[in-house]
Amino acid sequence: MYYQAIAQCTQALRNLETWLDKAEEYAAAKHFDVGVLMTGRLAPDMRPFTYQVQSACDYAKAGAAWLSGQKPPRHDDTEQTINELRARVRKTVAFAESVTEAQYAHAAEQRVSLSFGPPGTVLVGSDYLLQMMIPNVYFHLAMAYAVLRHNGVDVGKMDFLGPISWVGA
Amino acid sequence: MYYQAIAQCTQALRNLETWLDKAEEYAAAKHFDVGVLMTGRLAPDMRPFTYQVQSACDYAKAGAAWLSGQKPPRHDDTEQTINELRARVRKTVAFAESVTEAQYAHAAEQRVSLSFGPPGTVLVGSDYLLQMMIPNVYFHLAMAYAVLRHNGVDVGKMDFLGPISWVGA
Repeated sequence: MYYQAIAQCTQALRNLETWLDKAEEYAAAKHFDVGVLMTGRLAPDMRPFTYQVQSACDYAKAGAAWLSGQKPPRHDDTEQTINELRARVRKTVAFAESVTEAQYAHAAEQRVSLSFGPPGTVLVGSDYLLQMMIPNVYFHLAMAYAVLRHNGVDVGKMDFLGPISWVGA
Repeated sequence: MYYQAIAQCTQALRNLETWLDKAEEYAAAKHFDVGVLMTGRLAPDMRPFTYQVQSACDYAKAGAAWLSGQKPPRHDDTEQTINELRARVRKTVAFAESVTEAQYAHAAEQRVSLSFGPPGTVLVGSDYLLQMMIPNVYFHLAMAYAVLRHNGVDVGKMDFLGPISWVGA
């Protein structure tokens, strides 16, 4: 289930590319710089769209790494333009997809230490997946989505969910 | 893992009660009717806060039911006030918590039919959990959170995440 759950987080990130395309089309149609959306926020003391994307990427990357017993690769938060954000999403997806199902064999036994956790504590694999990785990936993606939605970009829930594996009944 | 994943969705709903408390305190401090927030939206063609809460509840309820081989109980969308929304959250949590771990023994083999899916199709248990239940619960909770955040309520990401099971390293 770890492999499948992490693959779904990776797909959620991939869905973001559709929103970026729609943001770009909207900016072009309305004759404004799409960079305005990249710095958009829902509140003045909230981090901007760019950060929300970087953060979603980081939780996906870290989850794929720690739960497969690897140290996450370092991706610096230098992105400013929409194309730089696309590249950030793509390198995150490429890393997550480089991890094979077999590499998650010991995911449940991983103990993950987080810089913002109480000193001397860790999360066990399942809690890290369910309480940290998944909710954070969706939270930051949803905040990015909300910034676009609030600003008039034509994104809808199916763009958030992405492809669904319907099968014959 | 089904039991744990669904328990985490239930906890995510429970976290919403903290946001409702903060919304009520904020409305009292600013001398406005908290009902204004209950009808809040991020865009004119988006469903209001109340709907976002009802929808998050419905996906949590439906997931707990279908994945344990039960038909979901019917909860009509009649809530209008903040206290009615609290009651909706509580009855959803109570139902989800009534399902035991043993009842999810056949979750992976469940085939779930959805009214909005293509005719004649279903989702298998793992896809239903990962592609439908979890992302929808978090999406609708995040939209509810975003409406409050955008309107100045002092909610933060830790209110979204809720309790974290840190253990000694």
